[in-house]
Amino acid sequence: MLHLSQAALGESKKSDNALMNVKIYDQKLAIGTLSVDKNPHIQFDLVFDKEFKLSHTSKTTSVFFTGYKVEQPFEEDGYPFLALN
Amino acid sequence: MLHLSQAALGESKKSDNALMNVKIYDQKLAIGTLSVDKNPHIQFDLVFDKEFKLSHTSKTTSVFFTGYKVEQPFEEDGYPFLALN
Amino acid sequence: MLHLSQAALGESKKSDNALMNVKIYDQKLAIGTLSVDKNPHIQFDLVFDKEFKLSHTSKTTSVFFTGYKVEQPFEEDGYPFLALN
Amino acid sequence: MLHLSQAALGESKKSDNALMNVKIYDQKLAIGTLSVDKNPHIQFDLVFDKEFKLSHTSKTTSVFFTGYKVEQPFEEDGYPFLALN
Amino acid sequence: MLHLSQAALGESKKSDNALMNVKIYDQKLAIGTLSVDKNPHIQFDLVFDKEFKLSHTSKTTSVFFTGYKVEQPFEEDGYPFLALN
Repeated sequence: MLHLSQAALGESKKSDNALMNVKIYDQKLAIGTLSVDKNPHIQFDLVFDKEFKLSHTSKTTSVFFTGYKVEQPFEEDGYPFLALN
Repeated sequence: MLHLSQAALGESKKSDNALMNVKIYDQKLAIGTLSVDKNPHIQFDLVFDKEFKLSHTSKTTSVFFTGYKVEQPFEEDGYPFLALN
Repeated sequence: MLHLSQAALGESKKSDNALMNVKIYDQKLAIGTLSVDKNPHIQFDLVFDKEFKLSHTSKTTSVFFTGYKVEQPFEEDGYPFLALN
Repeated sequence: MLHLSQAALGESKKSDNALMNVKIYDQKLAIGTLSVDKNPHIQFDLVFDKEFKLSHTSKTTSVFFTGYKVEQPFEEDGYPFLALN
Repeated sequence: MLHLSQAALGESKKSDNALMNVKIYDQKLAIGTLSVDKNPHIQFDLVFDKEFKLSHTSKTTSVFFTGYKVEQPFEEDGYPFLALN
Protein backbone atom coordinates (compact mmCIF):
# COMPACT_ATOMS: atom_id res chain seq x y z
CA MET A 1 0.00 0.00 0.00
CA LEU A 2 1.10 3.54 -0.60
CA HIS A 3 0.32 6.56 1.54
CA LEU A 4 0.20 9.84 -0.40
CA SER A 5 1.31 12.63 1.94
CA GLN A 6 1.52 15.86 0.00
CA ALA A 7 1.89 17.62 -3.34
CA ALA A 8 3.76 20.83 -4.12
CA LEU A 9 4.05 23.02 -7.22
CA GLY A 10 7.50 23.44 -8.69
CA GLU A 11 9.00 26.80 -9.67
CA SER A 12 6.72 28.73 -11.97
CA LYS A 13 6.86 32.18 -13.52
CA LYS A 14 3.27 32.33 -14.62
CA SER A 15 0.16 32.20 -12.51
CA ASP A 16 -1.18 28.74 -13.17
CA ASN A 17 -3.57 26.17 -11.75
CA ALA A 18 -2.96 22.43 -11.51
CA LEU A 19 -6.01 20.26 -10.96
CA MET A 20 -4.72 16.88 -9.74
CA ASN A 21 -6.47 13.66 -10.62
CA VAL A 22 -6.00 10.05 -9.66
CA LYS A 23 -7.09 7.27 -12.00
CA ILE A 24 -8.09 4.17 -10.03
CA TYR A 25 -10.87 1.56 -10.28
CA ASP A 26 -11.37 2.74 -13.90
CA GLN A 27 -12.38 6.17 -12.67
CA LYS A 28 -10.61 9.53 -12.92
CA LEU A 29 -11.18 11.48 -9.72
CA ALA A 30 -10.15 14.96 -8.57
CA ILE A 31 -8.02 15.10 -5.42
CA GLY A 32 -7.20 18.82 -5.23
CA THR A 33 -6.08 21.98 -7.04
CA LEU A 34 -2.72 23.73 -6.68
CA SER A 35 -2.15 27.37 -7.60
CA VAL A 36 0.93 29.58 -7.30
CA ASP A 37 -0.95 32.35 -5.53
CA LYS A 38 -3.35 30.61 -3.19
CA ASN A 39 -2.54 26.94 -2.74
CA PRO A 40 1.06 26.14 -3.74
CA HIS A 41 0.95 22.90 -1.74
CA ILE A 42 -1.54 20.49 -0.21
CA GLN A 43 -1.40 17.88 2.55
CA PHE A 44 -3.03 14.53 1.79
CA ASP A 45 -4.10 11.58 3.89
CA LEU A 46 -4.76 9.10 1.09
CA VAL A 47 -3.95 5.39 1.03
CA PHE A 48 -3.92 3.30 -2.16
CA ASP A 49 -4.10 -0.47 -2.06
CA LYS A 50 -3.91 -1.06 -5.79
CA GLU A 51 -2.35 0.45 -8.89
CA PHE A 52 -3.22 4.07 -9.53
CA LYS A 53 -2.09 6.85 -11.84
CA LEU A 54 -1.61 10.47 -10.85
CA SER A 55 -1.95 13.32 -13.33
CA HIS A 56 -2.36 17.08 -13.31
CA THR A 57 -3.55 19.74 -15.73
CA SER A 58 -0.78 22.35 -15.52
CA LYS A 59 1.15 22.92 -18.73
CA THR A 60 3.76 25.28 -17.32
CA THR A 61 5.12 23.65 -14.17
CA SER A 62 5.76 20.36 -12.36
CA VAL A 63 3.93 18.90 -9.39
CA PHE A 64 5.97 17.06 -6.75
CA PHE A 65 4.17 14.27 -4.92
CA THR A 66 5.53 12.77 -1.70
CA GLY A 67 4.47 9.62 0.14
CA TYR A 68 5.62 6.36 1.62
CA LYS A 69 4.91 2.66 1.47
CA VAL A 70 2.85 1.16 4.29
CA GLU A 71 3.76 -2.43 5.14
CA GLN A 72 0.99 -3.58 7.42
CA PRO A 73 -2.36 -2.20 6.62
CA PHE A 74 -4.82 -2.57 9.44
CA GLU A 75 -8.19 -1.13 10.27
CA GLU A 76 -8.79 -0.39 6.64
CA ASP A 77 -10.93 -2.22 4.20
CA GLY A 78 -10.72 -0.66 0.80
CA TYR A 79 -10.98 2.97 -0.13
CA PRO A 80 -14.23 4.28 -1.45
CA PHE A 81 -13.80 7.10 -3.91
CA LEU A 82 -17.01 8.91 -4.52
CA ALA A 83 -17.93 11.56 -7.07
CA LEU A 84 -20.95 13.65 -6.22
CA ASN A 85 -22.29 15.49 -9.27
CA MET B 1 -17.87 2.87 10.20
CA LEU B 2 -16.63 5.19 7.54
CA HIS B 3 -13.87 7.74 7.83
CA LEU B 4 -14.29 10.75 5.54
CA SER B 5 -10.82 12.03 4.60
CA GLN B 6 -11.17 14.81 2.08
CA ALA B 7 -13.25 16.52 -0.58
CA ALA B 8 -12.07 18.17 -3.81
CA LEU B 9 -13.78 20.24 -6.50
CA GLY B 10 -13.76 18.84 -10.01
CA GLU B 11 -12.82 20.84 -13.08
CA SER B 12 -14.79 24.04 -13.33
CA LYS B 13 -14.74 26.98 -15.70
CA LYS B 14 -16.81 29.31 -13.58
CA SER B 15 -16.04 30.68 -10.18
CA ASP B 16 -18.38 28.75 -7.95
CA ASN B 17 -18.94 27.81 -4.32
CA ALA B 18 -20.00 24.40 -3.01
CA LEU B 19 -21.34 24.32 0.53
CA MET B 20 -21.18 20.68 1.62
CA ASN B 21 -23.78 19.20 3.94
CA VAL B 22 -24.21 15.87 5.66
CA LYS B 23 -27.67 14.60 6.57
CA ILE B 24 -27.51 12.37 9.64
CA TYR B 25 -29.66 11.87 12.75
CA ASP B 26 -32.47 13.66 10.87
CA GLN B 27 -30.40 16.82 10.71
CA LYS B 28 -28.72 18.56 7.79
CA LEU B 29 -25.40 19.99 8.90
CA ALA B 30 -22.71 22.03 7.15
CA ILE B 31 -19.24 20.46 7.01
CA GLY B 32 -17.36 22.97 4.83
CA THR B 33 -17.33 25.14 1.71
CA LEU B 34 -15.25 24.59 -1.43
CA SER B 35 -14.43 27.36 -3.92
CA VAL B 36 -12.32 27.35 -7.07
CA ASP B 37 -10.32 30.39 -6.02
CA LYS B 38 -9.77 30.00 -2.29
CA ASN B 39 -10.56 26.50 -1.07
CA PRO B 40 -10.54 23.95 -3.92
CA HIS B 41 -10.10 21.09 -1.44
CA ILE B 42 -10.55 20.33 2.25
CA GLN B 43 -9.16 17.74 4.64
CA PHE B 44 -11.65 16.07 6.97
CA ASP B 45 -11.33 13.96 10.10
CA LEU B 46 -14.92 12.76 10.35
CA VAL B 47 -16.16 9.30 11.34
CA PHE B 48 -19.71 8.09 10.69
CA ASP B 49 -21.17 5.12 12.55
CA LYS B 50 -24.54 5.09 10.85
CA GLU B 51 -26.11 5.92 7.50
CA PHE B 52 -25.52 9.43 6.25
CA LYS B 53 -26.06 11.37 3.05
CA LEU B 54 -23.64 13.87 1.57
CA SER B 55 -24.78 16.74 -0.63
CA HIS B 56 -23.41 20.01 -1.99
CA THR B 57 -24.84 23.22 -3.41
CA SER B 58 -22.77 23.71 -6.58
CA LYS B 59 -24.70 23.55 -9.83
CA THR B 60 -21.70 23.75 -12.17
CA THR B 61 -19.18 21.19 -10.95
CA SER B 62 -18.70 17.90 -9.10
CA VAL B 63 -17.31 17.31 -5.63
CA PHE B 64 -15.08 14.27 -5.07
CA PHE B 65 -15.17 12.76 -1.58
CA THR B 66 -12.53 10.30 -0.39
CA GLY B 67 -12.51 8.08 2.66
CA TYR B 68 -12.12 4.56 3.96
CA LYS B 69 -13.92 2.00 6.05
CA VAL B 70 -12.79 1.53 9.63
CA GLU B 71 -13.16 -2.03 10.94
CA GLN B 72 -12.55 -1.74 14.63
CA PRO B 73 -13.78 1.41 16.16
CA PHE B 74 -12.27 2.09 19.52
CA GLU B 75 -12.09 5.06 21.82
CA GLU B 76 -15.15 6.52 20.18
CA ASP B 77 -18.65 6.61 21.45
CA GLY B 78 -20.91 8.29 18.96
CA TYR B 79 -20.38 11.53 17.13
CA PRO B 80 -22.12 14.60 18.37
CA PHE B 81 -22.96 17.04 15.61
CA LEU B 82 -23.84 20.44 16.94
CA ALA B 83 -25.26 23.48 15.21
CA LEU B 84 -24.69 26.77 17.01
CA ASN B 85 -27.01 29.49 15.73
CA MET C 1 -13.81 13.80 27.40
CA LEU C 2 -14.80 15.39 24.15
CA HIS C 3 -12.62 15.83 21.08
CA LEU C 4 -13.57 18.86 18.96
CA SER C 5 -12.74 18.06 15.33
CA GLN C 6 -13.94 20.90 13.13
CA ALA C 7 -16.24 23.87 12.64
CA ALA C 8 -17.99 25.02 9.47
CA LEU C 9 -20.05 28.07 8.54
CA GLY C 10 -23.61 27.46 7.44
CA GLU C 11 -25.17 29.01 4.36
CA SER C 12 -24.78 32.76 4.29
CA LYS C 13 -25.63 35.45 1.81
CA LYS C 14 -23.60 38.18 3.37
CA SER C 15 -19.88 38.34 3.84
CA ASP C 16 -19.48 37.79 7.56
CA ASN C 17 -16.89 36.81 10.16
CA ALA C 18 -17.44 34.46 13.08
CA LEU C 19 -14.88 34.61 15.87
CA MET C 20 -15.31 31.41 17.89
CA ASN C 21 -14.73 31.35 21.62
CA VAL C 22 -14.70 28.65 24.25
CA LYS C 23 -15.54 29.44 27.87
CA ILE C 24 -13.73 27.09 30.21
CA TYR C 25 -11.96 27.41 33.57
CA ASP C 26 -13.79 30.76 33.98
CA GLN C 27 -12.02 32.16 30.96
CA LYS C 28 -13.29 33.06 27.51
CA LEU C 29 -10.69 32.15 24.91
CA ALA C 30 -10.52 32.53 21.13
CA ILE C 31 -10.11 29.31 19.14
CA GLY C 32 -10.40 30.58 15.55
CA THR C 33 -12.22 32.80 13.06
CA LEU C 34 -14.45 31.66 10.20
CA SER C 35 -15.24 33.81 7.13
CA VAL C 36 -17.27 33.07 4.01
CA ASP C 37 -14.51 34.20 1.68
CA LYS C 38 -11.30 33.00 3.25
CA ASN C 39 -11.88 30.45 5.98
CA PRO C 40 -15.33 28.83 5.71
CA HIS C 41 -14.16 25.90 7.85
CA ILE C 42 -11.42 24.97 10.32
CA GLN C 43 -9.94 21.72 11.56
CA PHE C 44 -9.38 21.45 15.34
CA ASP C 45 -7.41 19.08 17.54
CA LEU C 46 -8.85 20.12 20.90
CA VAL C 47 -9.75 17.88 23.84
CA PHE C 48 -11.94 19.01 26.73
CA ASP C 49 -11.99 17.17 30.03
CA LYS C 50 -14.56 19.33 31.76
CA GLU C 51 -17.63 21.38 30.94
CA PHE C 52 -17.14 24.09 28.37
CA LYS C 53 -19.31 26.45 26.36
CA LEU C 54 -18.81 27.33 22.71
CA SER C 55 -19.95 30.63 21.23
CA HIS C 56 -19.38 32.70 18.11
CA THR C 57 -19.82 36.34 17.08
CA SER C 58 -21.69 36.02 13.76
CA LYS C 59 -25.18 37.49 13.70
CA THR C 60 -26.14 36.28 10.21
CA THR C 61 -25.26 32.59 10.04
CA SER C 62 -24.81 29.38 12.03
CA VAL C 63 -21.59 27.59 12.93
CA PHE C 64 -21.58 23.77 12.85
CA PHE C 65 -19.21 22.08 15.28
CA THR C 66 -18.28 18.39 14.94
CA GLY C 67 -16.51 16.13 17.39
CA TYR C 68 -16.65 12.85 19.27
CA LYS C 69 -16.44 11.48 22.79
CA VAL C 70 -13.17 9.91 23.87
CA GLU C 71 -13.55 7.04 26.34
CA GLN C 72 -10.03 6.37 27.52
CA PRO C 73 -7.91 9.41 27.80
CA PHE C 74 -4.24 8.58 28.00
CA GLU C 75 -1.06 10.57 27.66
CA GLU C 76 -2.89 13.71 28.56
CA ASP C 77 -2.94 15.56 31.83
CA GLY C 78 -5.12 18.62 31.59
CA TYR C 79 -5.25 21.21 28.88
CA PRO C 80 -3.50 24.51 29.39
CA PHE C 81 -5.21 27.38 27.63
CA LEU C 82 -3.03 30.42 27.44
CA ALA C 83 -3.80 33.98 26.34
CA LEU C 84 -0.77 36.02 25.32
CA ASN C 85 -1.55 39.74 25.25
CA MET D 1 6.63 17.69 27.82
CA LEU D 2 4.11 20.04 26.31
CA HIS D 3 2.34 19.63 22.99
CA LEU D 4 1.40 22.94 21.35
CA SER D 5 -1.78 22.39 19.30
CA GLN D 6 -2.94 25.69 17.90
CA ALA D 7 -2.94 29.47 18.09
CA ALA D 8 -5.80 31.88 17.36
CA LEU D 9 -6.05 35.66 17.12
CA GLY D 10 -8.40 37.36 19.56
CA GLU D 11 -10.95 39.99 18.56
CA SER D 12 -9.41 42.79 16.59
CA LYS D 13 -10.76 45.86 14.88
CA LYS D 14 -7.68 46.66 12.84
CA SER D 15 -6.00 44.59 10.20
CA ASP D 16 -2.89 43.34 11.94
CA ASN D 17 -0.21 40.67 11.68
CA ALA D 18 1.21 38.62 14.55
CA LEU D 19 4.49 36.87 13.90
CA MET D 20 4.84 34.22 16.60
CA ASN D 21 8.22 33.28 18.02
CA VAL D 22 9.44 30.69 20.46
CA LYS D 23 12.59 31.23 22.51
CA ILE D 24 14.29 27.95 23.30
CA TYR D 25 17.88 26.69 23.44
CA ASP D 26 18.94 30.36 23.55
CA GLN D 27 17.46 30.94 20.11
CA LYS D 28 14.43 32.93 19.02
CA LEU D 29 12.68 31.12 16.19
CA ALA D 30 9.62 31.91 14.05
CA ILE D 31 6.78 29.38 14.23
CA GLY D 32 4.09 31.13 12.14
CA THR D 33 2.23 34.34 11.33
CA LEU D 34 -1.40 35.12 12.12
CA SER D 35 -3.44 37.78 10.30
CA VAL D 36 -7.07 38.82 10.63
CA ASP D 37 -7.75 38.53 6.92
CA LYS D 38 -5.84 35.48 5.77
CA ASN D 39 -4.67 33.33 8.66
CA PRO D 40 -6.65 34.02 11.85
CA HIS D 41 -5.58 30.67 13.30
CA ILE D 42 -2.94 27.98 12.85
CA GLN D 43 -2.68 24.31 13.76
CA PHE D 44 0.65 23.19 15.28
CA ASP D 45 2.26 19.82 15.91
CA LEU D 46 5.08 20.97 18.16
CA VAL D 47 6.45 19.24 21.26
CA PHE D 48 8.67 20.95 23.80
CA ASP D 49 10.80 18.98 26.25
CA LYS D 50 12.28 21.92 28.09
CA GLU D 51 11.41 25.44 29.12
CA PHE D 52 10.41 27.76 26.30
CA LYS D 53 8.90 31.21 25.92
CA LEU D 54 6.26 32.18 23.39
CA SER D 55 5.91 35.73 22.08
CA HIS D 56 4.23 37.55 19.23
CA THR D 57 4.61 40.90 17.47
CA SER D 58 1.03 42.20 17.41
CA LYS D 59 0.42 45.40 19.36
CA THR D 60 -3.36 45.50 18.92
CA THR D 61 -4.68 42.06 19.80
CA SER D 62 -4.09 38.90 21.84
CA VAL D 63 -2.97 35.48 20.64
CA PHE D 64 -4.55 32.41 22.28
CA PHE D 65 -2.34 29.31 22.40
CA THR D 66 -3.77 25.87 23.18
CA GLY D 67 -1.99 22.65 24.00
CA TYR D 68 -1.68 19.82 26.45
CA LYS D 69 0.88 18.06 28.62
CA VAL D 70 2.26 14.76 27.34
CA GLU D 71 3.12 12.28 30.10
CA GLN D 72 5.00 9.57 28.32
CA PRO D 73 7.09 10.71 25.48
CA PHE D 74 8.08 7.92 23.17
CA GLU D 75 9.61 7.72 19.74
CA GLU D 76 11.02 11.18 20.15
CA ASP D 77 14.52 12.20 20.99
CA GLY D 78 14.70 15.94 21.37
CA TYR D 79 13.44 18.55 18.98
CA PRO D 80 15.86 20.12 16.57
CA PHE D 81 14.88 23.65 15.65
CA LEU D 82 16.60 24.88 12.57
CA ALA D 83 16.78 28.33 11.00
CA LEU D 84 17.73 28.46 7.34
CA ASN D 85 18.90 31.91 6.25
CA MET E 1 15.19 9.17 10.89
CA LEU E 2 13.97 12.73 11.00
CA HIS E 3 10.38 13.90 10.93
CA LEU E 4 9.94 17.36 9.37
CA SER E 5 6.93 19.02 11.04
CA GLN E 6 6.63 22.56 9.78
CA ALA E 7 8.27 25.60 8.22
CA ALA E 8 7.66 29.28 8.96
CA LEU E 9 8.85 32.52 7.38
CA GLY E 10 10.86 34.85 9.59
CA GLU E 11 10.19 38.58 9.88
CA SER E 12 10.09 40.29 6.51
CA LYS E 13 9.37 43.80 5.38
CA LYS E 14 8.93 43.00 1.71
CA SER E 15 6.38 40.78 0.08
CA ASP E 16 8.40 37.74 -0.89
CA ASN E 17 8.00 34.10 -1.87
CA ALA E 18 10.14 31.19 -0.67
CA LEU E 19 9.96 28.02 -2.71
CA MET E 20 11.36 25.26 -0.49
CA ASN E 21 13.31 22.36 -1.95
CA VAL E 22 14.80 19.20 -0.53
CA LYS E 23 17.80 17.55 -2.18
CA ILE E 24 17.75 13.79 -1.62
CA TYR E 25 18.52 10.71 -3.73
CA ASP E 26 20.42 13.07 -6.09
CA GLN E 27 17.21 14.92 -6.88
CA LYS E 28 16.05 18.41 -5.99
CA LEU E 29 12.35 18.37 -5.24
CA ALA E 30 9.83 21.07 -4.32
CA ILE E 31 8.06 20.62 -0.96
CA GLY E 32 6.06 23.87 -0.71
CA THR E 33 6.01 27.65 -1.11
CA LEU E 34 5.83 30.22 1.68
CA SER E 35 4.65 33.81 1.18
CA VAL E 36 4.17 36.66 3.65
CA ASP E 37 0.63 37.37 2.50
CA LYS E 38 -0.93 34.00 1.81
CA ASN E 39 1.09 31.14 3.28
CA PRO E 40 3.47 32.35 6.01
CA HIS E 41 3.76 28.81 7.38
CA ILE E 42 3.18 25.21 6.34
CA GLN E 43 2.62 21.94 8.20
CA PHE E 44 4.57 18.92 6.91
CA ASP E 45 4.33 15.19 7.48
CA LEU E 46 7.62 14.16 5.91
CA VAL E 47 10.05 11.51 7.16
CA PHE E 48 13.64 11.25 5.94
CA ASP E 49 15.66 8.08 6.40
CA LYS E 50 18.90 9.32 4.87
CA GLU E 51 20.85 12.53 4.48
CA PHE E 52 18.99 15.38 2.86
CA LYS E 53 19.52 19.08 2.28
CA LEU E 54 16.88 21.77 2.62
CA SER E 55 17.02 25.03 0.69
CA HIS E 56 14.72 27.91 -0.22
CA THR E 57 14.64 30.65 -2.82
CA SER E 58 13.93 33.76 -0.71
CA LYS E 59 16.65 36.38 -0.69
CA THR E 60 15.11 38.68 1.92
CA THR E 61 14.10 36.51 4.86
CA SER E 62 14.81 33.29 6.77
CA VAL E 63 12.80 30.08 6.82
CA PHE E 64 12.51 28.22 10.15
CA PHE E 65 12.11 24.46 9.90
CA THR E 66 10.97 22.39 12.87
CA GLY E 67 11.01 18.63 13.35
CA TYR E 68 12.15 15.79 15.56
CA LYS E 69 14.14 12.59 15.45
CA VAL E 70 12.19 9.34 15.23
CA GLU E 71 13.85 6.41 17.01
CA GLN E 72 11.92 3.39 15.88
CA PRO E 73 10.65 3.56 12.37
CA PHE E 74 7.92 1.07 11.71
CA GLU E 75 5.38 0.57 8.99
CA GLU E 76 7.51 2.52 6.58
CA ASP E 77 9.70 1.23 3.82
CA GLY E 78 11.47 4.09 2.11
CA TYR E 79 10.02 7.32 0.87
CA PRO E 80 9.26 7.73 -2.77
CA PHE E 81 9.61 11.28 -4.00
CA LEU E 82 7.99 11.78 -7.34
CA ALA E 83 8.09 14.70 -9.76
CA LEU E 84 5.28 14.81 -12.27
CA ASN E 85 6.08 17.12 -15.19
